[in-house]
Order: sequence, then C-alpha cells, then structure tokens
Amino acid sequence: MALIVQKFGGTSVGSTDKIKAVARRVIKNHQQGNQMVVVLSAMSGDTDRLVGMAHDIQTIPDLREMDMLLATGEQVTISLFAMALKEAGYDAVSLLGDQVRIETTEMHTKARIKSIDTTLIRKHLDEGKIVTIAGFQGVTEEGDITTLGRGGSDTTAVALAAALKANACEIFTDVEGVYTTDPNICSAARKINRISYDEMLELASLGAKILDIRSVGLAKRYNVPLHVRSTFSENEGTWVVEEDKIMESMLVSGVTYNKNEARITITKVPDQPGVAAKIFLPISDAGIVVDMIIQNTRAGDLTDMTFTVIRSDYDRAMSLLKDISKDINAESVSGAQDIAKLSIVGVGMRNHSGIASTMFHILAKEGINIMMISTSEIKVSCIIEEKYTELAVRALHDAFALDKDTIPVSEETL
Amino acid sequence: MALIVQKFGGTSVGSTDKIKAVARRVIKNHQQGNQMVVVLSAMSGDTDRLVGMAHDIQTIPDLREMDMLLATGEQVTISLFAMALKEAGYDAVSLLGDQVRIETTEMHTKARIKSIDTTLIRKHLDEGKIVTIAGFQGVTEEGDITTLGRGGSDTTAVALAAALKANACEIFTDVEGVYTTDPNICSAARKINRISYDEMLELASLGAKILDIRSVGLAKRYNVPLHVRSTFSENEGTWVVEEDKIMESMLVSGVTYNKNEARITITKVPDQPGVAAKIFLPISDAGIVVDMIIQNTRAGDLTDMTFTVIRSDYDRAMSLLKDISKDINAESVSGAQDIAKLSIVGVGMRNHSGIASTMFHILAKEGINIMMISTSEIKVSCIIEEKYTELAVRALHDAFALDKDTIPVSEETL
Repeated sequence: MALIVQKFGGTSVGSTDKIKAVARRVIKNHQQGNQMVVVLSAMSGDTDRLVGMAHDIQTIPDLREMDMLLATGEQVTISLFAMALKEAGYDAVSLLGDQVRIETTEMHTKARIKSIDTTLIRKHLDEGKIVTIAGFQGVTEEGDITTLGRGGSDTTAVALAAALKANACEIFTDVEGVYTTDPNICSAARKINRISYDEMLELASLGAKILDIRSVGLAKRYNVPLHVRSTFSENEGTWVVEEDKIMESMLVSGVTYNKNEARITITKVPDQPGVAAKIFLPISDAGIVVDMIIQNTRAGDLTDMTFTVIRSDYDRAMSLLKDISKDINAESVSGAQDIAKLSIVGVGMRNHSGIASTMFHILAKEGINIMMISTSEIKVSCIIEEKYTELAVRALHDAFALDKDTIPVSEETL
Repeated sequence: MALIVQKFGGTSVGSTDKIKAVARRVIKNHQQGNQMVVVLSAMSGDTDRLVGMAHDIQTIPDLREMDMLLATGEQVTISLFAMALKEAGYDAVSLLGDQVRIETTEMHTKARIKSIDTTLIRKHLDEGKIVTIAGFQGVTEEGDITTLGRGGSDTTAVALAAALKANACEIFTDVEGVYTTDPNICSAARKINRISYDEMLELASLGAKILDIRSVGLAKRYNVPLHVRSTFSENEGTWVVEEDKIMESMLVSGVTYNKNEARITITKVPDQPGVAAKIFLPISDAGIVVDMIIQNTRAGDLTDMTFTVIRSDYDRAMSLLKDISKDINAESVSGAQDIAKLSIVGVGMRNHSGIASTMFHILAKEGINIMMISTSEIKVSCIIEEKYTELAVRALHDAFALDKDTIPVSEETL
C-alpha cells in the first residue's frame, strides 16, 4: 500500500464541477489501494477577490490580517472537496494548517515551514479516510495563521510528503509535465520523462511556471519523488527524482531562456580590495537583486565589472551606479536592456567536457554574439542580444538532440 | 474604563464600505476610553453563496465539513475589519473561535459553547488593541471547527461579554430596538427603553427577529446588560437588564402574536393514566414540536385534549393522530390552521391580579372568541381566530396604554 500526496492548483478546483472531477480522480487512486493525502489551493479567482477587498480597505494591508483573510480560500476548497468525496461514498476529512499543525516562522505572507506533526493525518489515514489538507497555510507557535507565499501549496504538498515519507508527491497542473524547452517558441520541444532535482532547480526559469523552486529544493533535501503531471489527462508527466534513479541520462536536459534581465557594465574600475563591495552593497541595500557577475581584468590594475539585474530595476540601478562609479573613480557606466539569458542544463555535463564549447560553437554558427558567460556544474548560461532568443533556443535544442527520446550517455557514443 | 462587547450582523458588514463605517463607529467608542471587543457575522450573502456551493456538491452536506466551510465567512469580515481599524491608525487584532478558544460541544452546525478562555483577549486589550472576534464559530476539544447555528453571532457576543464580565453587550441591528408590538400592524407601537430578561424571553416570537432567544437566556444567566440598537443611528435602543434595574415597571410590556401555529383537538379521550404519553410520545418521536397543551375534563371519565403545533407540521400530525386516536379509543380528531396566538407579556403581572381578565374582557368587547388560554407568571396567551389578529393586537396595545411612555406601577394608580 503506497501513500501518495497529490496537489491540485486553483484552476483544477475552480468550480464545484471541477472539484467533483478532482474527487473522482482521487477516488480512483484510493480504489487502487493507496492512502491518499490531497493538498488543494484556493479556487482560482478567489484569492484575487479577497486581495481586492483588502486593498479597498487598507492601502498597504496588514500582513497578519492578510494571512487571516487569504487562508479562507483553501478552507473553502478542502471542505467542499471532502463533501464531494463523501457524496461519492468515501470517508474523508479536511484539515487546516493549524489543525494538522504545520508550524511555520512568523514571517507573514511568506512564512517557512518549521515542522509538521503527522499524528492526526496518520490517524485519519489509518481509519481509511482520504485526507485533504489546505495548501499554502500554516500556523505560528503562538497560533497565528500564516501563508507560505508564491507556490505555497506546492511547498505544503512536498513538505507533507517528506514528513509522511510518502511514496510520491504528485503536482497536478495544466501542462503535461516539464519540457526540454518552451513549446511556444520551439515546436520540437519534448516532455521530459525523468529529470534530476538539480536539473529541475536549474531549469527554474522554465519550470517556475509549473513548479515552485522552493518545493523542488525541499523535495531534493528530503528525497521526495515528485511527479509533475496534467489535471486533464491520465498520461504520465515528468518525474523529478534523485540523479542515480535516472538510468539513461541526457547530456543536456533542457534549454531555457529569460528575457527579464538587463546588463550593466562599469569600465576601468581601479582594481583594489573592497571595490566589489563598494559597488554591490549599495545595490543590495536598495533591494535590487543581481544575477550574473563577471569581472575581467584589464592591464594596469584596472578591471571591467559586468552584471545583470532584473529589467524593472534597471533604471534605479543605473542612477545609483552613476554616483558609485564616481566614488570609486571608474571611467564609465553603460548598459543594455535588450538582452536575454540563454541556458543549457544537464547533469551529463558533470562527466563530459566540451558541452560549453559546443554551445558557443552553435551560437557562433548562427552569428549570435555572446556578451557574458557563466557556468555551474550542470549549467551553462550566456547573455545574448534579445532578438536572437528564439533562433538560439531552436538551434541548441536541435544541436543537443533534445527532440529525440533519451540518448544513453556512454563512452561509446561520445 | 468600561469593557464593551459589540456585535454587528451580516448587513452591517455587507461591503468594504460598510466595514469601514463600522470601524469608525467602534473607534468612536474606543476614543471615549472604552476597551472594545467586536464580534462580527459573515458578510450578508456570503453564507448563502457557500451553502449554495455545498448543495451543488453534496445532497445533504456533511455537517463537520459544512462548519469548516461556513466558518470562513466570519474569518473574512474580521480580518478586513482589523485592516480598517489599522488603516485608521488604531491597533487591532482579529481572532477566530479556535484562537480565542471558544470551546463547544461536538454538535456540528448547532454546537453549544462550553467554555471561553479570555487570556488572549485580555492580553490584546491590555496592549491597547481593539479585538475583533469571529462570531458564530467555536472549536471542539479535539480541534474541529463548529458553528453555533441560528443567531450564533449573538450568542458569541453575549458569551464573550459574560466571560469577560463586560459592562455591556451591544447588539447592532437594522431596527431601533424592541417594540411594544409589531409596528407593521400597530402604528402606536413604541420602542421600549428597558425590559427585563424574562420579558424579553417571553417576547421571543416578537424579538426573535432582532435578538436570538438563546443569547437572551445566556445574558440572563450571567447577568449581562444587553443593548439592542440600530447600526444606522446613534439613538439609544432597548436595554435588556435585570428586573430590579427597571425602576418604573409597566404592567404589560408588550403584545405579541404568532400566526405560525395550528390547533388540534382530540375529543372524548378515555381519561386513564398514561394516555397523554400515548398521544405525545409518537408526535415528538416524529420530530413535531407541540406548543400549548390544554386538557379539559368532561363528565364520565372522558377528557378533551387540545394542543398546538407548528403549522407546517399540521398535516403530518393529523395523520399520526388519526391512528393514535383509534388506539386510545378517542371519539374524534379535529383541527384548524387559521388560528393565531396572541400574548401579553409583563413582569408587572407578578404582583397584580386582573391582568388576564382585562385581556379577556377587551377581546370579548371586540367580539373575538378565545379558543385556548395558557398563562405563565409574566405572560397570558390566547388562541383566537387568525383573522382577528391585527384587531386584537391594536385593542390590547391601546387598553394597556403601551403607546404611553413609562407608567409607574404604584398602589395609588391601581
């Protein structure tokens, strides 16, 4: 008998008919002899309605009261869902975050889970019930209701799966799984059957649309097998699992892009200890997130510093840097917003050299200039001109044969 | 410094603008140096919306899940209300039934309060906060959410006022207070300034529209001064208080009527021990509530038994009684639905004889026949033909001078 945690998002439970459909699906899994724990989000639109009322009343809504307000959304769906299960003749019980006792930090609207007590869930499961739990919410030690922020229901599901040592955590969404790249710009994009936690983390910019990055990290830490699949079909989706569970590893698992960044360069910075801090401390103090940073040494104790920021922070960052560059006696500050970050991700890179240079070669062949490069163990990212994004994605997808089903990595083939 | 519990119903908090208006009113009381505890109902319409969804999903909604669902309504209003107070610059905190710890029985959808822990409320009040608490809801010992049924928010307010030993419990409604009779049928009806708990309980059929009977009983038991007043004006409403706090007592405080009953008579019942049980046990087993019961002795060990039931139960009761009357060898069963119960209520009756006979005399003068009479210490009720209701109400209201302001009861005037 397996224990399965399933999570359905707001569009999956957006009406009473949809809630009944989810109930039928869960019942089928229950009938197969599985113990079922079902995490639900609020009905789509409900959260917006509540947030709208809050803003009607308070310019900047109080965070504690906002959590109190928003937590009602999931309370509605889980009680209706339990009714749907009972109507179909199955015993069920709904539980709130504070009833389970999902204890969190006190950081309202973006709390983090500290501990989960599984006693009550186990009791109900042992009595043969289907247990449905409000996603997105928890409770502080003092008993205040908290919410977990963006992607909170995914986090609830994975954390519950970890605490219950579930056999699987299934995240239901409106797509079939994780794709090798964005199907909207590359028709050859293919659903990935299995992917490692690390790759999924690196694919965040692609995967964030379907799976919250925080829940992937949690799944990796507690080794929870994650299954991202569609609410609207019975097809297997993408399994996110430990690396050694992926028998046939691809060199490259996916190609991602991000058009949300801007590039800033400070030229001829006197290369002295502490100069990087002088540049980046005021920037982070202003709440501006810096992504890639590259430092090139020039001749004569001078250096060029290039980095990227979120595009909406570009103007603020530029005006800050004009002052900073004077302070540190740099020559000039320049930048560009029409850039894109292009990445290839794959655990296969760990053991195989030449992946990065293949990427550079392919981009060069297409006449695409690379402005910045950054690499991690399983990722290579390049900053290019934004207008080449689609071209670059398709070329890399093709070059690494991502449209083909699994290619075994072996000494023979490479 | 007084501690005041105020309760606002669903129409008073039916929109974000109305919530802001309630906040302004509460703030005014807070500014006068009072500690404020504010109990709110769900936004009007919200409960219907939730109930509608529940019935969409389950033919007979599960009661535990129904409570889970309905409790969200008050959670929404109290969090928005706390935001409104904070927006106006006042510190506030919202608390759910289970956070306060309003512990109830396990009877879902009509639970009864067992205990209230005031520790957390006191703590917040001592910190200068306005405390707003979800009406209508509580929690079982095991941590399940319960609701208190009809009039539940009134009950929450009175129970909190009792537990906190509040100086007053103010129930805000859409009328100015409790009236001497229904203003819709008697234009001389007058707002009562002060009334005793016992009178208010007897006036239930009149008062139920504005004050739940259960909360009046609770107020009496714990001696909570109740103030029924209008959300839409600053006028004093009706104070419901201990009898000895009413200096100038009326002989009769109010005239009420009830057109919701039907009369049933069983004639020539052999008068034997146990015969009443044989009649009324099957009736109560069928869930039919019996109100007045009158037994007249006839000659020859025969008796007539007359009683009233809720009108919607009349047909069921009649068909049951046809069988019962055969069993007990009664002669016949007859009944009528076009009756009304007319009552006069007043603590003055305790010390003054002749009130009942005055009532009978006035009805006789108007040519109204009395079918049944029942009396309590502070009430006289008569069953009359329904069509005479309005005539009778006006005649009694006039005869007992209820349109006049307080008439002192003294040996001289009577």
